[in-house]
Amino acid sequence: MSIYWSERTRNLEPYVPGEQPRDRKYIKLNTNENPYPPSPMVLDAIRKACSEDIRIYPDPDCDSLRETIARYYNLKKEQVFVGNGSDELLAFSFMAFFDPCNPILFPDITYSFYPVYASIFNINYKVVELDEEFSIPVEGFFQENGGIIIPNPNAPTGKYLDVGLIARIARKNPGSVVIIDEAYIDFGGESAVKYIGDFKNLLIIQTLSKSRSLAGLRLGYALGHEDLIQGINRVKNSFNSYTVSRLALAGAEEAFRDEDYFRETRRRIIETRERVSLSLKSMGFKVVDSKANFIFISHPGVKSPVLFKRLREKGILVRHFDKPRISDYLRVSIGSDEEMDVFLDVIGKLLV
Amino acid sequence: MSIYWSERTRNLEPYVPGEQPRDRKYIKLNTNENPYPPSPMVLDAIRKACSEDIRIYPDPDCDSLRETIARYYNLKKEQVFVGNGSDELLAFSFMAFFDPCNPILFPDITYSFYPVYASIFNINYKVVELDEEFSIPVEGFFQENGGIIIPNPNAPTGKYLDVGLIARIARKNPGSVVIIDEAYIDFGGESAVKYIGDFKNLLIIQTLSKSRSLAGLRLGYALGHEDLIQGINRVKNSFNSYTVSRLALAGAEEAFRDEDYFRETRRRIIETRERVSLSLKSMGFKVVDSKANFIFISHPGVKSPVLFKRLREKGILVRHFDKPRISDYLRVSIGSDEEMDVFLDVIGKLLV
Repeated sequence: MSIYWSERTRNLEPYVPGEQPRDRKYIKLNTNENPYPPSPMVLDAIRKACSEDIRIYPDPDCDSLRETIARYYNLKKEQVFVGNGSDELLAFSFMAFFDPCNPILFPDITYSFYPVYASIFNINYKVVELDEEFSIPVEGFFQENGGIIIPNPNAPTGKYLDVGLIARIARKNPGSVVIIDEAYIDFGGESAVKYIGDFKNLLIIQTLSKSRSLAGLRLGYALGHEDLIQGINRVKNSFNSYTVSRLALAGAEEAFRDEDYFRETRRRIIETRERVSLSLKSMGFKVVDSKANFIFISHPGVKSPVLFKRLREKGILVRHFDKPRISDYLRVSIGSDEEMDVFLDVIGKLLV
Repeated sequence: MSIYWSERTRNLEPYVPGEQPRDRKYIKLNTNENPYPPSPMVLDAIRKACSEDIRIYPDPDCDSLRETIARYYNLKKEQVFVGNGSDELLAFSFMAFFDPCNPILFPDITYSFYPVYASIFNINYKVVELDEEFSIPVEGFFQENGGIIIPNPNAPTGKYLDVGLIARIARKNPGSVVIIDEAYIDFGGESAVKYIGDFKNLLIIQTLSKSRSLAGLRLGYALGHEDLIQGINRVKNSFNSYTVSRLALAGAEEAFRDEDYFRETRRRIIETRERVSLSLKSMGFKVVDSKANFIFISHPGVKSPVLFKRLREKGILVRHFDKPRISDYLRVSIGSDEEMDVFLDVIGKLLV
């Protein structure tokens, strides 16, 4: 604590990301990265953009990339915003659409960054309790509110909410912005992007970090009615004119062009997830039904913090959240088949 | 205006950056970019970092780069923060150190993003009036305040405030954070970084966009007492865990290693600035004494908006600010010798 910190800063409880250790080589199943590299076309495009032109600022409006993303989703450029990772977009969206006195709604078990955004921007919130199976009761979002944010699939459970129910939530809340955080949508769920023409209050946020293997490049995007996009744009232009580097712009464009590569890596991760889930169930694990690139697991015989610690000793990083209702669980990212075979082998032995 | 915008968003008047046109080739003297490319070592380092590892998140603490910068300035890693351009650092600093009810101080003629930050974070401010020569009267900063921010050299005037006077301002304000925005310090001024050990309230913000030719990469950094750095870090970790890409981390480290290249491009820009200033004076221009990579000029015979428009028609972009006290001026970035020769030739003919 310092006398120089603002009141806002003093009251913060910052988000803690999963570790990115430098001390030794781990099997990293803790931050939901993609085990497969990005398309070679993406790396080529970045290297090409790494030229003397890097002395020049990037296009602050990111027009070319926004046009590419718009074409990909059959939208207009004015319905697309791009930023420095989807977390930045979430922060901008909290600023753009939520007011302090009007409590927003999100699930009680969810991405743990949401309450942090609420705190830093002084936004009140109420949580909607998930049921015992971690399903989202949509009726919980039919109460008065100043905004709604739901990850689909949810984090850290991986549970998917039928896209038709997203439409119901958007329809029931014509006065509030409904943000669907689709960071994990490409691993088996259906995107709500198809409803953008129907609902002026629906904002979809996606990222290149997971399904397109570009966590290290930093690129997220938002899709929605152009009034919403303009709102985020006003905030961004009052915060940082140039949030996306020339290299990120170049790499991201190419990521939307190599569709075959995208489909193939996605397919492999889904297959691995299903196989690993079955193996874990056969070992007695409870495995929450996942449509993400991670699984949420718990074992009746061994406490999760113990498993977490022992896995770490064996060189395998997973994530444990010491929070109500989920402290018995571990979140395990889906790695390559080789990595998951080691994981299954090690965790099997730890149960004995 | 949309019913979905927060009150904050509705009241914003976003910053407008200089244009980055795509329609034709211009001589770009409008956004203070460096006319020389970055060191070849920097481009090599980025290309090397553009590997399959880009699927992995960057180090959220940017430890390696912070160690490199700390060594460069003879500081500790804990006294260094890095972010996605210095504008992002300014935004984080407004959040970290300034409170709504306690007005902050900055010059009346200054970087026009400061009032925008004040607006988005709901911070009151008072301006300190520059004298007729655009000099900063330091006594203006000896009044009660909730924080101080001064660019040195100032923007868009280019005028440098003696570093000893910065120390006086820091000493007179032990209860407030004094932010010195040194985006242009490398072009002839002396950095206040040497006072960091003396003043716990002094925060220096610098960037790789200007003197290190990396505007397209997005990298800024803050130097100060570790309590201040911790404060910015709390804000960043409540906003976006991973603000700096793997490519920016790699390129930035290398930029601090190629010192010879840095000194040489800096020297060339300073030489060009002095030569161009003399030529313009001989044409009857008033040229504000600059220690930046731009000059602030005005001509008694031709109105600035007219010059701005005619230069643009001739393929030369400069910047004009339609604001009180400076609407008679143009801000002209220092380009290469060849570019500036064209500029001098064209502007000379426009005066006839």
